[in-house]
Amino acid sequence: MIILGIDPGTAITGFGVIAHEGNHLRRITYGVVRTEAGLALASRLSRIYRQIQTIIQEYRPEVVAVEELFFNKNVRTALAVGQARGVILLAAETAGLETVEYTPLQVKQAVVGYGRAEKQQVQEMVRMLLCLPEIPKPDDAADALAIAICHAHSRKLSKVCY
Amino acid sequence: MIILGIDPGTAITGFGVIAHEGNHLRRITYGVVRTEAGLALASRLSRIYRQIQTIIQEYRPEVVAVEELFFNKNVRTALAVGQARGVILLAAETAGLETVEYTPLQVKQAVVGYGRAEKQQVQEMVRMLLCLPEIPKPDDAADALAIAICHAHSRKLSKVCY
Repeated sequence: MIILGIDPGTAITGFGVIAHEGNHLRRITYGVVRTEAGLALASRLSRIYRQIQTIIQEYRPEVVAVEELFFNKNVRTALAVGQARGVILLAAETAGLETVEYTPLQVKQAVVGYGRAEKQQVQEMVRMLLCLPEIPKPDDAADALAIAICHAHSRKLSKVCY
Repeated sequence: MIILGIDPGTAITGFGVIAHEGNHLRRITYGVVRTEAGLALASRLSRIYRQIQTIIQEYRPEVVAVEELFFNKNVRTALAVGQARGVILLAAETAGLETVEYTPLQVKQAVVGYGRAEKQQVQEMVRMLLCLPEIPKPDDAADALAIAICHAHSRKLSKVCY
């Protein structure tokens, strides 16, 4: 199964595509979509939407996993993340893909096995699980890969449990 | 000029279309897009996107005016409004329309002439300015019409001032 993980943001949206085959995880690609602060908000959102559409068309994921917002963030951040999330979920829905959401706690638990893990620990586990030579950069791309890995682990667990 | 005003929300998005001709404002249509709480978030956002696209195609506005978020709202509300706003701005951008944003203060000042006006006063002015027999219902539709009127007034003022 191909999983697309996304860490949404208006200025920078991280994405990570992985393959989950049996017990094996494989990195397919990762990166970020950046939009310039000088552009009109609608143009920035349109760019994010089109880039995510392109990634979906190119890598054909079966599911899109997005991080749920941390509710301790402030209102301005929540609005900005919400707008980006809106167009990302729309791109997934328009392509007929399933969308799933995980909290930061779930992502940390799935990747490190410990919900209060540090960012650095999560990134190191992402590197190890995907057999990468280095921690993926920038952070938003590593976060997106972590979300994709979280979905892969959740699938495995649900198969075992039910 | 045809103006589409929108009051975004995931559960209920208000819209109002008005014509601004010389000094005259005319109501063209108004209403709300509702999405069921039981639907997946991506499906709800997709429904809002498609409905706004349909309204744009049907009434051919030249500009889409959207309310800026009240920053006193809580984070959960900001995220929900942000997601709806994201797909609405995308629909406008995709149709090649200009998008403008006004704060609640600007809307009240433009419609009632007083930034701290009560909701009821704003709604009554919307009714009078558009020569409607009754206050538009529900509130989200009245708010959307107020945002459209705000843009009409701002245009007039900028013509006078510059």
